[in-house]
Amino acid sequence: KMLGRVLCTVLFVGAFPSPAEASQGHISVVLLGATGDLAKKYLWQGLFQLYMDQVSSGHSFTFHGGALAALEPGQRRMFDVLKKLSCPPDEAPNRCAVLKDQFLKLSQYHQLKTAENYTALSREIETLLRQEGLKEAGRIFYFSVPPFAYTEIAQHINSSCRPPAGAWLRVVLEKPFGHDLQSAQQLAAELAGFFREEEMYRVDHYLGKQAVAHILPFRDQNRQFLDPVWNRHHVERVEVVLKETVDAKGRTSFYEQYGVIRDVLQNHLTEALMFLIMELPANVSSAHEVVQHKLQALQSLWGLERSSAVLGQYQAYDSHVQEELQEARGYVSTTPTFAGVLIHSDSLRWEGVPFLLTSGKALDERVGYARVLFKNRAYCTQSGALRDAGHSQCKPKQIIFHFGHGALNTPAVLVSRNLFQPVMPKDSWKEAEARSDLHVFGQPLSDFYMYSPVKERDAYSVLISHIYHGRKDFFITTENLLASWAFWTPLLDSTSRQPPRLYPGGVENQHLLDFEMVSGGVAFTLAEPAELLNPSGQVPSDFRAIQSKFRQSPLVSAWAEDLISQLASDMEEAAVRSVARSGQFHLALSGGSSPVVLFQRLARHHYGFPWQHTHVWLVDERCVPLTDSQSNFLGLHRHLLQHVRVPYFNIHPMPVHLNRRLCVEEDGGAELYAKDIVALVANASFDLVLLGVGTDGHTASLFPRSENGLEGAPTVVLTESPVKPHQRMSLSLPLINRARQVFVLVLGKGKHDITTLLSRVGREPRKWPISGVSPSSGQLVWYVDYEALLG
Amino acid sequence: KMLGRVLCTVLFVGAFPSPAEASQGHISVVLLGATGDLAKKYLWQGLFQLYMDQVSSGHSFTFHGGALAALEPGQRRMFDVLKKLSCPPDEAPNRCAVLKDQFLKLSQYHQLKTAENYTALSREIETLLRQEGLKEAGRIFYFSVPPFAYTEIAQHINSSCRPPAGAWLRVVLEKPFGHDLQSAQQLAAELAGFFREEEMYRVDHYLGKQAVAHILPFRDQNRQFLDPVWNRHHVERVEVVLKETVDAKGRTSFYEQYGVIRDVLQNHLTEALMFLIMELPANVSSAHEVVQHKLQALQSLWGLERSSAVLGQYQAYDSHVQEELQEARGYVSTTPTFAGVLIHSDSLRWEGVPFLLTSGKALDERVGYARVLFKNRAYCTQSGALRDAGHSQCKPKQIIFHFGHGALNTPAVLVSRNLFQPVMPKDSWKEAEARSDLHVFGQPLSDFYMYSPVKERDAYSVLISHIYHGRKDFFITTENLLASWAFWTPLLDSTSRQPPRLYPGGVENQHLLDFEMVSGGVAFTLAEPAELLNPSGQVPSDFRAIQSKFRQSPLVSAWAEDLISQLASDMEEAAVRSVARSGQFHLALSGGSSPVVLFQRLARHHYGFPWQHTHVWLVDERCVPLTDSQSNFLGLHRHLLQHVRVPYFNIHPMPVHLNRRLCVEEDGGAELYAKDIVALVANASFDLVLLGVGTDGHTASLFPRSENGLEGAPTVVLTESPVKPHQRMSLSLPLINRARQVFVLVLGKGKHDITTLLSRVGREPRKWPISGVSPSSGQLVWYVDYEALLG
Repeated sequence: KMLGRVLCTVLFVGAFPSPAEASQGHISVVLLGATGDLAKKYLWQGLFQLYMDQVSSGHSFTFHGGALAALEPGQRRMFDVLKKLSCPPDEAPNRCAVLKDQFLKLSQYHQLKTAENYTALSREIETLLRQEGLKEAGRIFYFSVPPFAYTEIAQHINSSCRPPAGAWLRVVLEKPFGHDLQSAQQLAAELAGFFREEEMYRVDHYLGKQAVAHILPFRDQNRQFLDPVWNRHHVERVEVVLKETVDAKGRTSFYEQYGVIRDVLQNHLTEALMFLIMELPANVSSAHEVVQHKLQALQSLWGLERSSAVLGQYQAYDSHVQEELQEARGYVSTTPTFAGVLIHSDSLRWEGVPFLLTSGKALDERVGYARVLFKNRAYCTQSGALRDAGHSQCKPKQIIFHFGHGALNTPAVLVSRNLFQPVMPKDSWKEAEARSDLHVFGQPLSDFYMYSPVKERDAYSVLISHIYHGRKDFFITTENLLASWAFWTPLLDSTSRQPPRLYPGGVENQHLLDFEMVSGGVAFTLAEPAELLNPSGQVPSDFRAIQSKFRQSPLVSAWAEDLISQLASDMEEAAVRSVARSGQFHLALSGGSSPVVLFQRLARHHYGFPWQHTHVWLVDERCVPLTDSQSNFLGLHRHLLQHVRVPYFNIHPMPVHLNRRLCVEEDGGAELYAKDIVALVANASFDLVLLGVGTDGHTASLFPRSENGLEGAPTVVLTESPVKPHQRMSLSLPLINRARQVFVLVLGKGKHDITTLLSRVGREPRKWPISGVSPSSGQLVWYVDYEALLG
Repeated sequence: KMLGRVLCTVLFVGAFPSPAEASQGHISVVLLGATGDLAKKYLWQGLFQLYMDQVSSGHSFTFHGGALAALEPGQRRMFDVLKKLSCPPDEAPNRCAVLKDQFLKLSQYHQLKTAENYTALSREIETLLRQEGLKEAGRIFYFSVPPFAYTEIAQHINSSCRPPAGAWLRVVLEKPFGHDLQSAQQLAAELAGFFREEEMYRVDHYLGKQAVAHILPFRDQNRQFLDPVWNRHHVERVEVVLKETVDAKGRTSFYEQYGVIRDVLQNHLTEALMFLIMELPANVSSAHEVVQHKLQALQSLWGLERSSAVLGQYQAYDSHVQEELQEARGYVSTTPTFAGVLIHSDSLRWEGVPFLLTSGKALDERVGYARVLFKNRAYCTQSGALRDAGHSQCKPKQIIFHFGHGALNTPAVLVSRNLFQPVMPKDSWKEAEARSDLHVFGQPLSDFYMYSPVKERDAYSVLISHIYHGRKDFFITTENLLASWAFWTPLLDSTSRQPPRLYPGGVENQHLLDFEMVSGGVAFTLAEPAELLNPSGQVPSDFRAIQSKFRQSPLVSAWAEDLISQLASDMEEAAVRSVARSGQFHLALSGGSSPVVLFQRLARHHYGFPWQHTHVWLVDERCVPLTDSQSNFLGLHRHLLQHVRVPYFNIHPMPVHLNRRLCVEEDGGAELYAKDIVALVANASFDLVLLGVGTDGHTASLFPRSENGLEGAPTVVLTESPVKPHQRMSLSLPLINRARQVFVLVLGKGKHDITTLLSRVGREPRKWPISGVSPSSGQLVWYVDYEALLG
């Protein structure tokens, strides 16, 4: 038996604990995809490093390479890789040579294809351990295989290769973890059928990069200085950047499906950003606390919209795709190879601070960094030359976690000298020599305290060590993964139809990829240069809002996002006009889910909206307390009111909860609201009423076949909904029809049938209350998205 | 008669219209203080320029110098000045020589001391006009005299020297226009007894400086570009700066009374700032609109506090004062010769944008400018060298109105080339040559479009021309003046006791006068260097809050501003503690004027206050609608709630206005509020109740000799106030006493008597309701300022 032989040799050289000493037990590492690129380039070297580091830990090891190839060719290929393993510069060459020899002997190739192969592997491990009298500590399975192979392998491991009770199982998974939220959920659900959450180690190798991994310890060790400034009052912006000079050539089969956002932003850059912006746990070495805080930070981010990103594609990409994927000559891909994304957090700490994530291929330099730029809060009374000398507070102030490459060509932590001298752990980070010739981030290097690692370590060897130590905070939990996909998927969806800006690549890009923050989103600074326009000339024009008629009234139609943005602008215009005319703007809003995006847009893009002079009324309300999650008002408050400055007195929730009772007739809530309207709104004529439409044709809380509120006096009524909560309060149809303007918003495929029906029927409010909306002297406008209009 | 002779000569040379042509009438200019410094340096030259410009306008002129000196010596001194008048370089020398000769002949000295002198002057003018057959157009009286002489001269002019009906009177006044709000009001009232508002032209010579005067036209002519960016979303900061190298030597008798804020900031820098931040009138040439908009801008500024400014004094100042004012050797002045002030506007356009005003003597350079620095909203994808080339959006973007001196040594308008190329009037501003050797405001001059005046004109000659044309928008109206003093006086008052930081002067100041924005105010960046501490060693220590006991409870006492700041911090601490304990903070606040400053401080300085988890209750309310100016809630809303993010549901105004009726017993408002408290506040025990004290010993709306609310159940009661509005709603004493903490705030001299009395009496709530405040298991703390405590 080869393994027996190996162990004997090991015991002979004395670098391996004797069975009696081996009290920590044996660890079997199984590398699946043992002869693939990643394994060749990083993983075997990482495992060898683990072995060198832990050979005296009391654990014994065996290393098992697995692949689909038959034993003989697989073995040969794998040992070709292993022979090339290098000794790190800080290791004594003699010791390393001996250990490499041992490592080779402890490593074995297995064809892992069928259930039987896995059963055989498991049996081999058991036999060996029995023979050597070793206790089993655990098994590590490292999945370095394409994602489509995951499920089958997982199934085999779970059914045939689990270690016995008392020993742990750790499966290490490599991205991609899905393609969007849905596929990630599906993959996660499948894996959950085979492994427990704590058994899974999802790798994002950025978490193994030294400068990324040091972000949290840095924040922790420098709390005293950072606490007062790590917030929106002091931070001007945060940038997380990965620029590459290479293009996608040779990888287009992968790249064409993924693109830069899935490849880099959704995972690496997001993870680095979370380390920067998460609330610092009391104990940064608690994996649980770190994971929880990271999740909260992810959840605090504003949803992305199409305008949150600028996308680019290097010009030669299409030809690379045509060549490698055998596509036709005219094939045009919209896969982005460059992205700049603006992210905002809703947390009090970061509100308003722009987070800029940027990555691209075929750029002018290779560099990765996360940079926190502080605001200049100083006025320097001295002029020019003196102002720039020393640690002047008027020079830029920044903290940079430099992942690698670039002019520095090393992982590094840089802190502007006019900020503070950071505390750094002396055993792992050393102060770097000042190279005054170098300028980085707009300043001479001598303006910074700069630290680089005492010992540069490859990300994979760091992560393999963390797997060995069970440090789960260096890996992506399922919850974290899904939250990240939930965040990125809407952007992927909304940009999938968008042709990226073409760029020539390298320094020739000039300012073509510079972008700017404009009205809540980003846009390229330079106008699209004519000669670089999409050569197909087939820029889809469906993004423009179309204007036409619906039920004899003006119709605005577009894709949902554009429609919402048009509606929001029209509302602002109505508000400004009304305030100019009467000093006030009386706006009645509907609840439900459709207007949420509208509310967010109003809150985030329309700084010119005259909120100070706006009165906000409810079109309808559910008979629940205002703080109940079903309350229309709560939604309105959460998505709009708490972000803008409407005076308290101008906010008019419906009094559905008087005397702590819900919509009791005797409390006269509806009458009270009607009275307030009469008292405050001239002629009880709202300036603008925003309505929606239900699939049954209801609007406001006026339902088909109901008597209440469809006819009679312009008033406020109690009604019954066919769905829970049944009791409702609503403006009556005659009251709605007194408005100066009524906008009806209809969104989504689900509304296609009712939209089609409404386009044909006349005024029959008892069947379809919405058909009774027809302002007596005001204007009605329909805002219907393409999905509702066209199905 | 000299004048007769003069006119003959004039008619003879033909440069003067013949009586028949002189249809515009005659203008008499009287320069009071004709031989003073200002007159010598600027005013006569300005009048000569006016004459040269307007000699063909159809007006005829005579110029009258007045002073206290007797005729003969006065005449000699004045003509010594006139002989030195210079010809501007753009004037043909021949023409100028002829005109200068005429100007001298048209000028005459008068002793102006007594009423008779003025009468005589008036009579002389009338006689001359009659003799020459000229119609009188108007009279200009230019006050170039110390302010103490104003009233008497004004009186003489008004009673003895007004032009006849149909001709105008213009009196030109030079600063100082008072010393603070009160003195300015007094002076304004006195002048108003003699002159109508439209007759007065108050000079701020900055409004005559070409770069200042061009701010509004620039904004107007470049509306298209500026409109979208002239706001808080794009502007990072605005700086208005006047740095001088000279010190106050030779002027200390004036300076010691005024200091840098009154000398430069209250007038020159404020005026320039207003031009930058005011809403642009539709018609910038309408003097009325300009003046109104400027006033509105002034009124939108937040009140200044002591922490709004840093003050300095050059080290030799004390010795200059001792020498010139014959003060004792040990004399220590607190007059500032340097000030940096942070100003904020409450307008939606500028909210949050810092305006920094800085001026000082004995600094490292002489320069004046107003600078608008824009935010960097770009991400430049290209690296270093390329990023800096061309018009990269990542370079600083600024617009500078350069008043004069400095490295440029000319008035100028500079606009960063990466912003836009401005529209400039070609007849008055020309593009300057690029001098790439010069760096200004951190950039090479070649990064800017730079314009300088086609013809440099002295501020006084510009202003004299505006007086002639009756352009009142170039002068300070009474309303404007008083609004400016109303803005600056609180800062002057609160800093009058503060020893300024001493600085050596010139380049040696190094970074000593650099300052930073910190928590809503400014502070010097460097700690006070020991060797420069006030040499007297007599730094008043009264600024520290003293701690002691009052009525057996803890007492915090300090000057009002420090007391408020301590109280606000203690409130934040209580809130944070409470939220950590229970997830909520129930805060009950009193109305009235004392807490206004507290509310502002909480809104502007305490970003860490957990408002999201705070419930705000009212301690008491007046029975008026919530939107009535007398409502406690309205004050609370205006000064606190509209600036912070308390959820709508957590705001609990007292229901004094149910069913649109005010505090009607049957409406059960008090019971409703009590019910809400019981429902939401655990044990009906508020976390913190903030109270005040009336001069009669009342607290909340619990009044002496009233039955209601002093004893019995912890509830909410209707009470009667001895002062209007009589009806009130209030927490009862027993309810207040259930609180965990009660803070009582007592401010001002007016409260000294009741404070003294309370320190002596026991618990007698029927006499003094405040004496019944004694939390059963909570803590009571008194916050009493020195004025209330010590009288």
